Amino acid sequence: MSGPAGATPHASSRAAVLDVIRAAGTISRVGLVKATGFTGATISTVVRRLIDDGLVVETGHAESTGGKRRVLLQLNLSSRYAVGVHLDHDGITYVLTDLGGSVVARMSRAGVGVEDPRAVVERMATESAALIEGAGVERSRVLGLGLVAPGPLNQAHGLRLLRPAIRHWGDFAMGPELERATGLPVVLDNDATAAALGEHWSGQAGGGAFAALYMGTGIGAGLMLGGVAYRGPSGNAGEIGHIPLAADGPECWCGARGCTEALAGPGAVVEAARADAVLARSAGLTGGGRGRRTADFAAVTRAAHRGDPGARALLERSARYLALAARTLANIVDLDELVLTGPGLAIAGSIYLPVVREELERSFFSRASHPVTVRLSRVAATAPAIGAAAMMLQSELVPLREGMRLPENLAAAAEPDPPARASTTP
Amino acid sequence: MSGPAGATPHASSRAAVLDVIRAAGTISRVGLVKATGFTGATISTVVRRLIDDGLVVETGHAESTGGKRRVLLQLNLSSRYAVGVHLDHDGITYVLTDLGGSVVARMSRAGVGVEDPRAVVERMATESAALIEGAGVERSRVLGLGLVAPGPLNQAHGLRLLRPAIRHWGDFAMGPELERATGLPVVLDNDATAAALGEHWSGQAGGGAFAALYMGTGIGAGLMLGGVAYRGPSGNAGEIGHIPLAADGPECWCGARGCTEALAGPGAVVEAARADAVLARSAGLTGGGRGRRTADFAAVTRAAHRGDPGARALLERSARYLALAARTLANIVDLDELVLTGPGLAIAGSIYLPVVREELERSFFSRASHPVTVRLSRVAATAPAIGAAAMMLQSELVPLREGMRLPENLAAAAEPDPPARASTTP
Repeated sequence: MSGPAGATPHASSRAAVLDVIRAAGTISRVGLVKATGFTGATISTVVRRLIDDGLVVETGHAESTGGKRRVLLQLNLSSRYAVGVHLDHDGITYVLTDLGGSVVARMSRAGVGVEDPRAVVERMATESAALIEGAGVERSRVLGLGLVAPGPLNQAHGLRLLRPAIRHWGDFAMGPELERATGLPVVLDNDATAAALGEHWSGQAGGGAFAALYMGTGIGAGLMLGGVAYRGPSGNAGEIGHIPLAADGPECWCGARGCTEALAGPGAVVEAARADAVLARSAGLTGGGRGRRTADFAAVTRAAHRGDPGARALLERSARYLALAARTLANIVDLDELVLTGPGLAIAGSIYLPVVREELERSFFSRASHPVTVRLSRVAATAPAIGAAAMMLQSELVPLREGMRLPENLAAAAEPDPPARASTTP
Repeated sequence: MSGPAGATPHASSRAAVLDVIRAAGTISRVGLVKATGFTGATISTVVRRLIDDGLVVETGHAESTGGKRRVLLQLNLSSRYAVGVHLDHDGITYVLTDLGGSVVARMSRAGVGVEDPRAVVERMATESAALIEGAGVERSRVLGLGLVAPGPLNQAHGLRLLRPAIRHWGDFAMGPELERATGLPVVLDNDATAAALGEHWSGQAGGGAFAALYMGTGIGAGLMLGGVAYRGPSGNAGEIGHIPLAADGPECWCGARGCTEALAGPGAVVEAARADAVLARSAGLTGGGRGRRTADFAAVTRAAHRGDPGARALLERSARYLALAARTLANIVDLDELVLTGPGLAIAGSIYLPVVREELERSFFSRASHPVTVRLSRVAATAPAIGAAAMMLQSELVPLREGMRLPENLAAAAEPDPPARASTTP
């Protein structure tokens, strides 16, 4: 990186400046000095480089406050794009976002079911290409693709989808295979962390201790601590779906007992509903197949909204366990903001919200110091896909953090002082 | 801070350099460049200031590796000291540490019992002065005093000791009162976070996701994420003593149900032991009073070690709940290292250790990715006091983090680019 000796800005300076510009919308160089704590010389150097790279543009002047009018800076939103893919058993959600994380195109396709992973990779490559082409975006402006799926991740093997439904994917090297098929750099993460990031980029989250409580096929949480995604050493932080809420509870697929997911997940709700002949009939459940679980969970929720007492009781029981998991999470990270998100809560959030709120108001340990704000996501169904795209944008905006897999061709971005990135298009 | 324009090192550079020197023992300037990622010019400026301030000294040369022999740097350990005070119902522990966090003097005194807080403040001032004088350390070299106690903290009122036993302390402004009485700057924190910091400074903890599971009067955890204490927005992170392990469990003093502490804390163990007439007699329990709880917990532990089946069963039941809390913590922060510490585990750790280990080996969600290393602390009884002193040293070494109360006279140290601190002695 150029710049006067002794003032060489680190990658983190560049990233921090870009992130402040993104969050602010428009901001002056003086504003950047105040917001980042960097010296004027550092800001000047970093901004010059960002303008040279086409990521930032000057855009008029701020109102005069007596002195020289200040030039305002903003992201050049259409300079870069990223694809976000949320892969789940019951559906694949795609988004294309601009450099600011705004969705410019989206689509949903069938889930992976029992498909062979190689076939899914080819399908994702075709569908991503269609998304980019349909939006009229030049491929050379697409930084890459973020792919998120239910955890746990395994760093050694890239994404490792160990859930029973897709356990036959075993150690399939998803990252490299998808890079080969799409010709794009790929980053991987779990869906809950991506959901938290998606909420953050959608302007829905503050900078304290924020969590996205995610309910999709399973239950998890994504954590943003001080505005930065916290993933943990192996990228598996936030696994509240597998904390024990009842020492002698039912066995979970993960091998432990009494997990939140086994007690309260959509699967547990649907199973109990199917076992109730009256409810199964009145709610119109399909009665079979893992692939129908999302549809049946939605049917139980509709029945509850119609006033079916059996459906209501099942969902409220689930909500009470989810509320205990939320209290646990809140006490451990000293949470001040929680958003309920993910496909399951896009459907049933209005039933879960008051139960979670009440538990935290009554039992959050530090309630005398501060409340935990709880709300429903406004992007619940697409937050993980938006977060997946944001992960890729962050490879430009923010140095990738510990616990996040880096494809070889992006590894330089995580070095303390990397060269400026070349175009990533092959 | 001096230095060429454009190369002004931030407080964080200074702190990072000092912390690397502390952790390394001895290191060259070139080593610092590698370890911190800063430029040679920045390291040179920062080191020159640290030497001028007397915090760092040059100490001989590294073995030649062909080129010029490198000058080694190390902390000037006796240049600064700090007092650490761990205040608990059953005892007050004092340590005096040097700049490297090594204990140069320690002492234990009676706990606060039902004493008036003003009397305790005066006593702590007298006892701290005796500790410093007894060690032959000049008061002008004492940076200040770190005080830790059971949470929750309340930022608005400084330390707020809300446990039933000392609830009559109410909103007593502990920080300012103690500063007045001792004439030293005071920083406050909770005991579990201080224990984690104490373990870290005692060279007992790595840089990933580390937690100190603390059992004193109550149960809590201190978190170090990436080598930095994580306190949360209100300083109350890690409260695993108040997570629900049984939805319909006993009521806890905190107002919630089924908390770890109510099910498994030393108080619950002692209460159950006292209710068992045979065990109470064989273990020689006092049978009364909160102030005797630590003594009675120790007596139950001795009985278990002698083979008393009733005592053994009570402690193993407690250990199983503690193990569930440990699994919860591990899943949420993706833990890779856990140390069992605090006075309760200094006494009974050998009974708890295998139970916690086994639970994490069997049920930690990310066990396919990495294990959680679990061990007993080697400084279990004094870790919180060491951590309390380290907090004060960090006001010199590391900018204080969010969620930590700052006395007025230290607030400058948390600014992005503060002036060098003057001597803190009044």
